[in-house]
Amino acid sequence: MKIAISGKGGVGKTTISALIARALADKNQSVLAVDADADANLASALGLDLSEGKIKPIAELEELIEEKMGTGDKTGQGLYVMNPSVADIPENFSVESDGVKFLAAGTVKTGGRGCYCAENKLLKRLINHLILQDDEAIVIDMEAGLEHFSRGTGEGVDLFLVVIEPGMRSIETALDIKKMAEDIGVKKVYGILNKVRNQEEVKLVKEKLTEIEILAELPYNSEIARADLEGISPAQAVNEDYKTRISHILESI
Amino acid sequence: MKIAISGKGGVGKTTISALIARALADKNQSVLAVDADADANLASALGLDLSEGKIKPIAELEELIEEKMGTGDKTGQGLYVMNPSVADIPENFSVESDGVKFLAAGTVKTGGRGCYCAENKLLKRLINHLILQDDEAIVIDMEAGLEHFSRGTGEGVDLFLVVIEPGMRSIETALDIKKMAEDIGVKKVYGILNKVRNQEEVKLVKEKLTEIEILAELPYNSEIARADLEGISPAQAVNEDYKTRISHILESI
Repeated sequence: MKIAISGKGGVGKTTISALIARALADKNQSVLAVDADADANLASALGLDLSEGKIKPIAELEELIEEKMGTGDKTGQGLYVMNPSVADIPENFSVESDGVKFLAAGTVKTGGRGCYCAENKLLKRLINHLILQDDEAIVIDMEAGLEHFSRGTGEGVDLFLVVIEPGMRSIETALDIKKMAEDIGVKKVYGILNKVRNQEEVKLVKEKLTEIEILAELPYNSEIARADLEGISPAQAVNEDYKTRISHILESI
Repeated sequence: MKIAISGKGGVGKTTISALIARALADKNQSVLAVDADADANLASALGLDLSEGKIKPIAELEELIEEKMGTGDKTGQGLYVMNPSVADIPENFSVESDGVKFLAAGTVKTGGRGCYCAENKLLKRLINHLILQDDEAIVIDMEAGLEHFSRGTGEGVDLFLVVIEPGMRSIETALDIKKMAEDIGVKKVYGILNKVRNQEEVKLVKEKLTEIEILAELPYNSEIARADLEGISPAQAVNEDYKTRISHILESI
């Protein structure tokens, strides 16, 4: 199964991506977790220590991009190889930790470098063309916002899990995601309501969001917020109730 | 003065952009507020009702993009006009409300449409080439994350205000912004600490963020969160103390 986690910036995509990847691994799935958000840090949310530079994001592997994508230059104005082979990428460019393989698509670390068109095209190709066995899963922490839809990055996924926090803009983004997922041919779009403080919020959100089935309500968790500031991964910070709610999501999809 | 509001997704960029634009207008500045985030809604944060379609985002003005940018096609692979004239854009494509002119750069509403390279180049040109008088200001709500730096969208601004919430990823993004603002030639980068719940959080953030001067600490405000769910603009929801803190930011830059 190929699962994309999407939603407005700041709703908790990265935390939930990490918890879902870990929960799938606990069910003996072979999991590839992909950080597709240039401004997220799925690695640290998974509890991986990448400080020793063990993994390089795809975007920094200039030779790989050149080899796979051809003459596309960094301004996004070149022409690309249409069908680069991607099967070797997870094996060669991921690191594994406790049953989860991790792959970073790219980080934007230099101002003025140009659009990330080439990197997104390679990622799209990767998601589309990896063939999975029954006991394999891909979990993709998508970039915040909506441009990845415009780019069609996630068109090869089986479903979108949209993380929603109680707030109008988060709800509007979820509705945009539902529509645009259909545009790129993905019919399954489910919601996860995150950072819930009270049932009045749940009611208000559900009234405005009748088009998306909500699979789980996750409470606002000061432990996760605090753990984040202290550099502790969410999987270590959440309690059993929280983990049960995450498992329930996997049983529902 | 040209001010870009930046930061990790979900930290409160749009709310703070709206409050700063309103505060500048209260000081009799002529303000152009630009929504450069395809997944934000600065218009509603400013209290503008755009439901009647009074304004079209630049990205939807296909003829304008074609006229200004030339042969750049929608996949971001074409060639662009280098120096399109932009002086007429604020006049012709903004709406005004209570002394604030509003302009939307673009919304991503169709999956699979391609990169937003052309729109970002036009926006960059606009920010760079508008010449402001002493009593004029531009406030730009930048897209979440970091790709706008890679694209150099904000290279014509005078300063970046980075909104930071207590959380490691928000802090890491702020440090990336500081570095990348320098890459694109913007030396002034100040921080606004938002959604503060207690002084312990302030202490933890300031310990990790010694490189950025913090101009204001804004408390977590359940009124803003609630107003947002009910469709009320933040300028109507915040109290005098909050407004004083926003004014203080303007006096410090």
